[in-house]
Amino acid sequence: MTTSLPHQADPHALDPTDGPLTVEELRLASRNHALPLEALGSDVTPAGLHYVVVHFDIPTIDAGQWRLRLGGAVRRPLELTLDAIRTRPRSTIPVTLECAGNGRALLRPRPVSQPWLLGGVGTAEWTGTPLAPLLEEAGLDADAVELVFTGADHGIQGDEEHDYARSLPVGDTSGAGVLLAYEMNGQPLPPQHGYPLRLVVPGWYGMTSVKWLTSIEAVTRPFDGFQQRVAYRRQRDAEDPGEPVSRMRVRSLLIPPGIPDFFTRRRVLRPGSTLLRGRAWSGHGTVERVEVGIDGQWLDARLHPPAGPFAWHGWSLEWDARPGDHELACRATDTTGEAQPFAQAWNHQGMANNAVQRLVVTVRG
Amino acid sequence: MTTSLPHQADPHALDPTDGPLTVEELRLASRNHALPLEALGSDVTPAGLHYVVVHFDIPTIDAGQWRLRLGGAVRRPLELTLDAIRTRPRSTIPVTLECAGNGRALLRPRPVSQPWLLGGVGTAEWTGTPLAPLLEEAGLDADAVELVFTGADHGIQGDEEHDYARSLPVGDTSGAGVLLAYEMNGQPLPPQHGYPLRLVVPGWYGMTSVKWLTSIEAVTRPFDGFQQRVAYRRQRDAEDPGEPVSRMRVRSLLIPPGIPDFFTRRRVLRPGSTLLRGRAWSGHGTVERVEVGIDGQWLDARLHPPAGPFAWHGWSLEWDARPGDHELACRATDTTGEAQPFAQAWNHQGMANNAVQRLVVTVRG
Repeated sequence: MTTSLPHQADPHALDPTDGPLTVEELRLASRNHALPLEALGSDVTPAGLHYVVVHFDIPTIDAGQWRLRLGGAVRRPLELTLDAIRTRPRSTIPVTLECAGNGRALLRPRPVSQPWLLGGVGTAEWTGTPLAPLLEEAGLDADAVELVFTGADHGIQGDEEHDYARSLPVGDTSGAGVLLAYEMNGQPLPPQHGYPLRLVVPGWYGMTSVKWLTSIEAVTRPFDGFQQRVAYRRQRDAEDPGEPVSRMRVRSLLIPPGIPDFFTRRRVLRPGSTLLRGRAWSGHGTVERVEVGIDGQWLDARLHPPAGPFAWHGWSLEWDARPGDHELACRATDTTGEAQPFAQAWNHQGMANNAVQRLVVTVRG
Repeated sequence: MTTSLPHQADPHALDPTDGPLTVEELRLASRNHALPLEALGSDVTPAGLHYVVVHFDIPTIDAGQWRLRLGGAVRRPLELTLDAIRTRPRSTIPVTLECAGNGRALLRPRPVSQPWLLGGVGTAEWTGTPLAPLLEEAGLDADAVELVFTGADHGIQGDEEHDYARSLPVGDTSGAGVLLAYEMNGQPLPPQHGYPLRLVVPGWYGMTSVKWLTSIEAVTRPFDGFQQRVAYRRQRDAEDPGEPVSRMRVRSLLIPPGIPDFFTRRRVLRPGSTLLRGRAWSGHGTVERVEVGIDGQWLDARLHPPAGPFAWHGWSLEWDARPGDHELACRATDTTGEAQPFAQAWNHQGMANNAVQRLVVTVRG
C-alpha cells in the first residue's frame, strides 16, 4: 500500500465525463465549502456554513498596508485605506449568493470542475459602503462601459496566470445593494470571504462579488480577462464561445427532513405530521410561489417574508408522512414567470443550474 | 442527460477499495470542511477554515432551554444552564485538534468514509470552564471508570440509531486543558463547532471532543456505544475488533509554496529564495524536530514556539529554489522519540495516519 495520489496529467481531464469522480474534484470539494442543507433553516448563514469558492489560495493581507485603487476612465482616481472606506456611509444588507456552478456534479455528463452538489449557496448580512457614491466621486468618463474588479488572489487557470478579476456593466454598478463590504454577519470579513474588502452584487451569481478587492478600473471596452472570456459561460461545447452567466436563476431547496445515515445521508422519518421547510430565491424577480412535490403530487407551500429584498424566502408545508419510501421535491416560480425546470438543460461548464431538487426519504412505522 | 445521482445501495460499499471515489464520499467531503493548507500560516485558525466533522446533522439548539446534565455514578448529580457554566472559572486555551481519519483518502486500498486528504486539522482558541472542578463538585463514585459525553446530534451509523457519544477514562478527564467550551476564537461557538457547549480534550483526536454536549455520565463499566465499540478503531480488517484510537500521533504539514493551478492545484514557483513553512504537532509529547526533505535531502527546519502547550508549532526553512520539478516533504519527531513514517501502516478504517506529506512543485525560470 502506498500513500501517493494518482496525478491526472491528461489534458482532456477538463472535458465533461460520465466517468467516476477524480481526485482533483475531491481536492476542490475539500477546499471549497458547501452549505450543509440543514443550515437552510437560518435566515442568515453563519460564517463557516456559507458556501465558499477560492479559485487560487486565500491571500494573506495586511489591512494596514492594503489600499483600494479606483482608476481607469475616471476624472478623479482614488486611493482609499480601509479606515477611509469604513468612515463612509454604511449599509447592512442580507444578500443571498449562489455559485454559478451549484448543482454541476448532478449533471450527466458531468462537467469537471468544483463538484457542487446543491450546497453552493448562503445568505449573509454584509456591511459596507454603497459603491455608487464612490463612483460619483471618482467621476466616470462618459465612454466607460464596464468596471473591472480585481482581487488579490493569484494563480493559473486555463494556462493563464492572473489575478482573479471580473467586470460589471456600468449600468449594473449603481444598483441598490451593490456594496464594498468589510463585514459579514457583524464581524470583519473572514479570510475566505475576502478580508479586508469585497464586492457584493445582489442578484448576481457569486463570481461577480469579487473578494480581496484591490482595484476597480473603469474601462471603455468590454473586459476580456480569463474569468470573463473563458470561465462562467454557458457553452454547448468547448468550441462554443457561449453566453456569460449573470443573474441567479430562480431556485428552491428543501431541508432534508428526519435523521440521516452517516455515510449514505439517506433520511429516515417517523410517521405523522412533518413540517417540510426550505428556501427559495431568484436574481431576476421575487419568488412568488413554491410548490412541494410529494410522490409526484404538487402542493403550494406557504411563503415566508425574506429578511430583505435580496435575501432568500423561507417556505414551509405540513406533510402527513405515511410509512414507506417517498420522493420529495420543490419548485419555485418568480415574478418574471420563470419556474425551475424538471430536467436541467445541459451546458459544457455546468453553469446556472436550477433543476428541481429531488430527495427520497423513508418513513418508518 | 439526467440530474439523478447513482445511489450506492451495495452493502459492501464500506469495504476499502482501489476503485474510484463514490458520490457518498463527495457528499461527505462537501459537508465536512477541510482546512485549506495555506491556512496553516495562522497560529489560530479562523472559524470557517478549521476542519469540521458532523456525523449526522448540525443540531439547532435553543441555548435558553438547553441544560447540561452531569449524572450516573456521582454523589451529587448536577443540571446546569449555560449561564451557570459561564459564571464558573474561565480559561482560554489554544488547542490543535485533528480528525482521527485525516489522510484516509491517501491510503491504498482506500477506506471508504469521510475522504480526508490532509486538511482534517485546525487550531482554535477555546474558552470555557475546566472540567475537573465540576467533577469534584459532583463527586465521582470510587468505582467510576469512565465519563460518557453525549451530544445532541442524532442519526444512524452502522444500522444503529444513536446520539453521538464518546467516553474518556476518568484519569484523562482531569488533565490540564480539558474544557467545557462555549467560545471559539472569542465568539460563541459556531453551530458546526458545537453550540452552545462542547468538550475540548487537548492531545486527543477530535472524536473525543464531543460537540453539542447534553450530558456527562459517570459509568462503572467501559462504554460500548457505537462510536466507541465500532468506530474510531485501528483494525486489520472488518472482523478484527481492533484498538481504539486516542492521542494524536506526531505529524507535520507544509504550506504549498508558490501559486496554484485552479483545477490540478499543481504549484508553480519563481526561482530563488523561498521560505518553506508549516506546522507540526503531537498528542504524545512535544514536537522537538521537523526535517524538510527536498528531492530526498533532509534538512532541519527552524521550530517556532507554539501559542500554548496544546497548540501546533510553526516551522520554517529557507530554500534556494532552482528551476525544475522538486519533491518537497516534511517529517516531525516528538519528545517520545516517535517520528512520522515514510510509508503509512494501513488499517481498515484509515485511522491515525501520520505519513510524511509529499508535494511536487515546479520552479519556472
